[in-house]
Amino acid sequence: MKQHIAERMHGISAFYVMELLQRAKQLEARGRDVIHMEIGEPDFPTPPAVIAAGNRFLRTGEVKYTPAAGLLALREAIADYYHAAGINVDARRIFVTPGASGAFLLAFGISINPGERILMADPCYPCNDNFVRLFGGRSELIPVGADDDYQLSADLIAEHWGAECKGALIASPSNPTGTVIGREALRQAIAKVTELGGCFYSDEIYHGLVYDDAVSSALAFSDKVFVINSFSKFFGMTGWRVGWLVVPEEFIDAAERLAQNIFIATSTQSQYAALASFTPENLAELEARRLEFQRRRDFLCENLPKLGFRIARKPQGAFYVYADSSDLADDSFEFAKELLETQAVAVTPGRDFGVYRADRHIRFAYTASVDRMAAALTRLETFLCR
Amino acid sequence: MKQHIAERMHGISAFYVMELLQRAKQLEARGRDVIHMEIGEPDFPTPPAVIAAGNRFLRTGEVKYTPAAGLLALREAIADYYHAAGINVDARRIFVTPGASGAFLLAFGISINPGERILMADPCYPCNDNFVRLFGGRSELIPVGADDDYQLSADLIAEHWGAECKGALIASPSNPTGTVIGREALRQAIAKVTELGGCFYSDEIYHGLVYDDAVSSALAFSDKVFVINSFSKFFGMTGWRVGWLVVPEEFIDAAERLAQNIFIATSTQSQYAALASFTPENLAELEARRLEFQRRRDFLCENLPKLGFRIARKPQGAFYVYADSSDLADDSFEFAKELLETQAVAVTPGRDFGVYRADRHIRFAYTASVDRMAAALTRLETFLCR
Repeated sequence: MKQHIAERMHGISAFYVMELLQRAKQLEARGRDVIHMEIGEPDFPTPPAVIAAGNRFLRTGEVKYTPAAGLLALREAIADYYHAAGINVDARRIFVTPGASGAFLLAFGISINPGERILMADPCYPCNDNFVRLFGGRSELIPVGADDDYQLSADLIAEHWGAECKGALIASPSNPTGTVIGREALRQAIAKVTELGGCFYSDEIYHGLVYDDAVSSALAFSDKVFVINSFSKFFGMTGWRVGWLVVPEEFIDAAERLAQNIFIATSTQSQYAALASFTPENLAELEARRLEFQRRRDFLCENLPKLGFRIARKPQGAFYVYADSSDLADDSFEFAKELLETQAVAVTPGRDFGVYRADRHIRFAYTASVDRMAAALTRLETFLCR
Repeated sequence: MKQHIAERMHGISAFYVMELLQRAKQLEARGRDVIHMEIGEPDFPTPPAVIAAGNRFLRTGEVKYTPAAGLLALREAIADYYHAAGINVDARRIFVTPGASGAFLLAFGISINPGERILMADPCYPCNDNFVRLFGGRSELIPVGADDDYQLSADLIAEHWGAECKGALIASPSNPTGTVIGREALRQAIAKVTELGGCFYSDEIYHGLVYDDAVSSALAFSDKVFVINSFSKFFGMTGWRVGWLVVPEEFIDAAERLAQNIFIATSTQSQYAALASFTPENLAELEARRLEFQRRRDFLCENLPKLGFRIARKPQGAFYVYADSSDLADDSFEFAKELLETQAVAVTPGRDFGVYRADRHIRFAYTASVDRMAAALTRLETFLCR
């Protein structure tokens, strides 16, 4: 009997938070008021200018396939966006994709052979490892802690590099830790991977959402890197599913062929809507949102420690706090389940992001208002005094 | 130096028609009036009811992620659509995907192991083979001709089955031939694959667009099949990128896990818009379009033979005529290039669909009005008299 599930699926697990999400829905169906701090999706609606552009485009009725690499105008707008940040990228190297998910599919599909390994940090976003597995590769998860800013470094890359290594992935700002790799550390990491002859993948989907210092794209240091980005987070367009991938010149042809075959193209109306993201008015709206996220981060970083959580590195970007809960519970997954059950507060357990000290950590997403989070902290306090 | 392209990309080729498309654009940029009969995309705009639904949804601003498997309401609407055709499918088996492309990614990703083979017809849609390669599998292309209705049969499947076979794919109506597998032949093919212990994949993306007899979904004969379908063709929603996959019960969990990881979800506004497809008013609009396609098919099938093309099997569905050009030219690709260059008529060469008698065939897409096609045939006549 051959009608069985492909072997790769044994290594691709569901997220633990899905179990919590499902339970949260059940509780809500029974009238409980669940406070969601588990979801990696901003509570803001899509910016008005982007909605308006989407509506204008739809009224034409001409929702036809675009070229596989995306609308030329959008690729050029993205190139201009880089240019405004002092980085020159040929629009031909930019591929519009169905979200950052599509960008990862494309990047790994054109570069990873079965058996090859990609170095990445533990903790990290769990899909990244699963994308590698999809193509028969394996991730090598390197334990990182607060002393490393939860990021890989040139030294860690050199130390863990082996014959079967294809490359290294750095996500900055990081999900789940919100930490940013320093400019010089990023430059050195890219140089090290290049020296080793590997591919450097830079997950920059939280770029724009940084609160203290500026963040550098890997493109500032090399033309030979893969950069994954998205309109989902900073630009507030999660459900539209539109992101992009920048590839080294030598990979343009392969990316074009693979995109033709596995996507045909990205949603047309999403691309036209995304084109409206770069106006000064919209960027001003996004800046206001960024300041609100910063306020939320500061609120959490000030108040979570009062409850006994430890935050070893203040997050500088994204919308997550990765808090050490080991003074409060032995197993953060059990903690999260009980917290949801008794107090209707949903958070994500560390084990969704790796194995290294995972059961000692909880990810709080500040994708809810300060008022809602204040209510959540009151419930947490009640929970901890149980 | 490891920064090289993945080996799988050597087997994934660009479509030959892309070369023609690019040239067509150059000609248009110089003011030439190109008649497009190469494109697998209807000329009709998205139906008004669907556009209206998309606009209504966008105005809410709440374009957030949906569940990975799609909106429950849409999965249920699709289940109801099957139910109206006399087929019972549990909505839990239906996964909404980013186009049929996403459905193929999901179906093959959860079922094909490296080294396994999938039987498919030659000629067939070229992406199907490339999706198999993406996961380290290989297609076995089985030459089929007019006597086979350009379709696999239980006998052909039995004859070509081997130890490394994972399953068989049947696309009906077929792209490029427009032929439909008979109800009994489909039943037998499914029974044979099941008996052999393999997976049966049914590409039904042109369902709804049939002109003579009704067409049966593979789901009418078995619950153990994978069915790929889409809102692109019959429902007129190409650029929206929304399709669906039906999986056997045992694959639900794997499909859920893989969809979470590689898509997050399908474009939200596309899903809400697709929900408006099933109203009686919209179905009436689609029926009018179907009749127009039928008129176009009949026009081509009557007139192409007058120019010397042979149509060995009258197409019964989709919007393609696969015409034998061997009385007119030795190499249909060269023919297509010259036709575009001298007469500004774009068609797709057979070699985009396989190797079996490929250079003797041309695919005409009737995605242009009868008037435009009449003009194209006049130009063809001039070309043939050169």
